[in-house]
Amino acid sequence: MNTNPVQLFDVESSTFTYILVADDDRSAVIIDPVERHWERDLAHLKRLDLTLAYVLETHAHADHVTSAGKLREVTGAQAAVPSGCGITPAEVQLDDGDVICFGAGERIEVLHTPGHTAGSVSYLWRGNVFTGDTLLIDGCGRTDFQSGSSAALYDSVIGKLFALPDTTRVWPGHDYKGQSVSTIGWEKRHNARLANRSKAQFASLMAALDLPKPKLIDIAVPANQNLGLPHGA
Amino acid sequence: MNTNPVQLFDVESSTFTYILVADDDRSAVIIDPVERHWERDLAHLKRLDLTLAYVLETHAHADHVTSAGKLREVTGAQAAVPSGCGITPAEVQLDDGDVICFGAGERIEVLHTPGHTAGSVSYLWRGNVFTGDTLLIDGCGRTDFQSGSSAALYDSVIGKLFALPDTTRVWPGHDYKGQSVSTIGWEKRHNARLANRSKAQFASLMAALDLPKPKLIDIAVPANQNLGLPHGA
Ligand SMILES: [Fe+2]
Ligand SMILES: [Fe+2]
Repeated sequence: MNTNPVQLFDVESSTFTYILVADDDRSAVIIDPVERHWERDLAHLKRLDLTLAYVLETHAHADHVTSAGKLREVTGAQAAVPSGCGITPAEVQLDDGDVICFGAGERIEVLHTPGHTAGSVSYLWRGNVFTGDTLLIDGCGRTDFQSGSSAALYDSVIGKLFALPDTTRVWPGHDYKGQSVSTIGWEKRHNARLANRSKAQFASLMAALDLPKPKLIDIAVPANQNLGLPHGA
Repeated sequence: MNTNPVQLFDVESSTFTYILVADDDRSAVIIDPVERHWERDLAHLKRLDLTLAYVLETHAHADHVTSAGKLREVTGAQAAVPSGCGITPAEVQLDDGDVICFGAGERIEVLHTPGHTAGSVSYLWRGNVFTGDTLLIDGCGRTDFQSGSSAALYDSVIGKLFALPDTTRVWPGHDYKGQSVSTIGWEKRHNARLANRSKAQFASLMAALDLPKPKLIDIAVPANQNLGLPHGA
């Protein structure tokens, strides 16, 4: 099964946005859209002649602002977000095991994969997993803010994501090297941070990273918890 | 039918490279790979556990050097190129109407679409058309070098590409605005250069562009005519 999403990129924050198209070519879902690209993304929906059913977020991002609220407003789509992220204006609050349906029989399964943030989820659709900042290609998201936890991330990746079939395609929330896609099988065997490492080894590796505070975090997180809309809107 | 390719991007030249995956998830074809990314692209083939059947070129590029020769060398794939581009070391020289087969029953149809260069082709696969620099999203390639011709490009787009079904997805050779994909239907109605324009109007529009000579053309074209390999190799 090689139904791939449409992958869009934001150069400034190296963020991927995904459009998942139903097999009937009529209905779509967008994952992690970026505020400054809402018109670009809307143009893609128009060009492909799609109706947007849902805007999904993998977590409350710290490095960029979402266009979820804006896209919801202009398309009439519903916003569906992880329940543990404090994104209160979204009409659908998702928990582990929930299923989002769109188009004629498309199913997206929600996997709660905490660690990068406590509320982070991954989305599973037709042999593709959208991992947000939980699992990146040959890497993973940081775990030092927003109730992040290296122990939780380790359990999410090893226990949930690496339990998926080896051929599952991994579509990350970011990439900084021009990469597009990986597979669970490859990451299980080769991921520089997570393959063949104990939980304790992973914890010390993550603790030693000593990364600077993200520049936008104090603006982006509250904005994203309001779906990127101005507060009071 | 929404089988999409994997789309990879070169930030320096804004070039797209595409990996087409056979439905059996074993075999693949790569279109327009870029020299400096051959290891990145090879890593994608390994991660997806694919065997590369063919390296395809849409034309002899003027703005970047291909990795076709290098990928052929390391993977054992065959190089298949348009016959009118002077890419002599390629084992397969393609003409209009030719079909490239890979995997279990995948068919790529060759459309000769001259105009950006005299030899340029587009590739049609499962409702997707890979248009190289003939048709871009809301634009088209330039027609002022390498035996380019605005009249030929007009005929190629209007006569061949716009004759494809409206839902055909258009995957261009370049994009400069973060866009990924369009459709024939949308381009037919809205393309800023080609929709609702006569051949004469299009010719004067292209003649008026007055673009600078591409910086790399004197290096890139001869290099690409040798599949990106050093001459004498
Ligand atoms: Fe994040
Ligand atoms: Fe070109």
